[in-house]
Amino acid sequence: MSADTDRGVAALGTFEFECGDVIDEFEVAYETYGEFTGDNAVLVCHALTGSQHVSGRHRSGDTAGQARAWWDDIVGPGKAVDTKEYYVVCANVPGSCYGTTGPASEAPDGEPWGTRFPPVTVGDWTRAQRALLDHLGVGRLHAVIGGSVGGMNVLDWAVQYPDDVARVAPIATAARLDPQCLAIDGIARRAIQSDPNWNGGDYYDGDAPKRGLALARQLGHVMYLSKASMADKFGRRAAGRDAVRDVFPTDPAASFFPYRDVESYLDYNAEKFVDRFDANSYLYLTRAMDDYDLSEGYEDDAAALGAFEGEALLMSFTGDWHFTVGQAEALAEAFREAGAPVAHHVVESDHGHDAFLVEPEKVGPPLRDFLADGVGGRSVTDTLDDETDDDYAPVHSSLFSG
Amino acid sequence: MSADTDRGVAALGTFEFECGDVIDEFEVAYETYGEFTGDNAVLVCHALTGSQHVSGRHRSGDTAGQARAWWDDIVGPGKAVDTKEYYVVCANVPGSCYGTTGPASEAPDGEPWGTRFPPVTVGDWTRAQRALLDHLGVGRLHAVIGGSVGGMNVLDWAVQYPDDVARVAPIATAARLDPQCLAIDGIARRAIQSDPNWNGGDYYDGDAPKRGLALARQLGHVMYLSKASMADKFGRRAAGRDAVRDVFPTDPAASFFPYRDVESYLDYNAEKFVDRFDANSYLYLTRAMDDYDLSEGYEDDAAALGAFEGEALLMSFTGDWHFTVGQAEALAEAFREAGAPVAHHVVESDHGHDAFLVEPEKVGPPLRDFLADGVGGRSVTDTLDDETDDDYAPVHSSLFSG
Repeated sequence: MSADTDRGVAALGTFEFECGDVIDEFEVAYETYGEFTGDNAVLVCHALTGSQHVSGRHRSGDTAGQARAWWDDIVGPGKAVDTKEYYVVCANVPGSCYGTTGPASEAPDGEPWGTRFPPVTVGDWTRAQRALLDHLGVGRLHAVIGGSVGGMNVLDWAVQYPDDVARVAPIATAARLDPQCLAIDGIARRAIQSDPNWNGGDYYDGDAPKRGLALARQLGHVMYLSKASMADKFGRRAAGRDAVRDVFPTDPAASFFPYRDVESYLDYNAEKFVDRFDANSYLYLTRAMDDYDLSEGYEDDAAALGAFEGEALLMSFTGDWHFTVGQAEALAEAFREAGAPVAHHVVESDHGHDAFLVEPEKVGPPLRDFLADGVGGRSVTDTLDDETDDDYAPVHSSLFSG
Repeated sequence: MSADTDRGVAALGTFEFECGDVIDEFEVAYETYGEFTGDNAVLVCHALTGSQHVSGRHRSGDTAGQARAWWDDIVGPGKAVDTKEYYVVCANVPGSCYGTTGPASEAPDGEPWGTRFPPVTVGDWTRAQRALLDHLGVGRLHAVIGGSVGGMNVLDWAVQYPDDVARVAPIATAARLDPQCLAIDGIARRAIQSDPNWNGGDYYDGDAPKRGLALARQLGHVMYLSKASMADKFGRRAAGRDAVRDVFPTDPAASFFPYRDVESYLDYNAEKFVDRFDANSYLYLTRAMDDYDLSEGYEDDAAALGAFEGEALLMSFTGDWHFTVGQAEALAEAFREAGAPVAHHVVESDHGHDAFLVEPEKVGPPLRDFLADGVGGRSVTDTLDDETDDDYAPVHSSLFSG
């Protein structure tokens, strides 16, 4: 860990959830990078199964059970979000399992909360982050940035605390999930809850519902990739000889058919995932994501953004079918209608939703320039500047072609 | 049942599977419609969970456990596939559970086969159909038609028995599944096999793995619909007051969030499905589909079709992301390269893969005219005739837009 990285768990006292439930000794795990100079704070919001550990892949210290530094190519000294210039803060969201109070945390009765943990919303995440920033002595933020459901978290900042943030960058996100994604998330939760080991959420002193969680993760994985990236990466190839299909039960008849590379990849990754993530957290966080709706409590999306006077950079990816370019363009329209300076920067990529993590060379420059110069930043593009605006409603044409 | 409809179970004697296994008393359940005149036989191939019961919704007799007449709008007296003109035959495929020998059937030892049933392939389906037709006294077929994996079955006829069929109509299908669909099918099988009630496939004297099968069905359902059709049909609406979420286990925290219409629809349909379909059959049939590859044993798809001298009508649907327009166009190219007269008729539809079942007014006319007049049929169109051929590589632009 570099000298200017700080990590800790902030005891924030009483926290009241949107649902009305209260937890008295609420804790938020966080990391900060760089030095705070009063006006250089950038809050990073993590995605569904991410953590506060954004950067610093080779740091020493206790990393057990933590997600790896998920945006190390973007955030760090000399990188797009330059921690020599900005004071970067990232907090693990309420309901997660990387140190912030969640279902796996101990309740006052000494037992894990389990499904007694209050239903949590993206709005709760935002308020917990606000409380953490108060604790750290940070008032107004230079920027809030994040991808996927982290992008929804960013949008919520513009709605709940419009005066507290100058620039927002919601990346690979949408004003709300579409019904197809709601359906797949719902099936993932059903897989967890159908695992007998889930036991109504009470499994912390026994076997965890690893098979159900593995199924949920595999579904998520398919959503994060694209047809094109899966074709490139796996094709219909059989897995190598050393691949063993032992993550899930099988039967003799199956062995007539190849164990495919794509299956092996999903099995391997699911097996690693279930060791680092809590099944109840997966239920809670996907529910928060599914529930999020920018326009909730307002007439429409533009009205929700009405009080925000900063600038916005939207980034979307042509191969992303989880959060589409079309949804991002609708969001850009809402910012325009609300009178906020906005740019919608579309990245050509076959990498699907994962692109915001795996294409740092495309994500970094516009983000860097936006932090420095706003929507006028040199490498920031906008769909309105493009002659063929219509191209940005659909996803990349190659996505679902043969 | 009308006077000219016949149904039965043909005892075909010994059947050798592609894997080399043999079943001695192999039976194929079938239905026929219309009268055979010697040159008017049309074989219909059903989709994954379909049955031999193609037509005749209001027939009397024993329909228990049967899928409903799945193409009643297309096949029947006076309809596109006119049973006053054609002798229509449909057979339940080996491995299924509607009367043809499959995992739920009794093995020689008096117990159900379970996962001792031989691994089955699309090629086995075709050979079983050929044996049934011999049994019925049908030699050369006027046509073989079918959708989805039934379309793969159609393609296999053109490869295995090129001299036995004059016209093939593979609908909403592809030369092989893409890795994204392979992944989702693999996850569906893992859901079934993770259900403790599956018990290695041995559950016929106990509780069936209904939850695992329900999860698999829900995944299939999402594949058959499209983003656009799900948005139209469900939006993000909550289900009605009378909807109860009791198909899967849940927990108190979930009740803070709405039980959505899309979830209620998937739960309701999954619950009905698990009462009519066998979980082991689902494993066997999806493996057959995943394994199918038109080019297997040949240099490429065109070479596989080299011996086929009939005509082909391909139909695809712009909103279908399971079997895309691009895949159908690649298939059309293979027929062209093989020198077979072919038309690729693209249907504009937001209905996803389901379109071949739910848009009979669009599917019927080209199919009728193709059966009568081949690719020159009046309402048959071809991508090559279209000025904007490029439009047919990607799926419909609205599919994954906001």
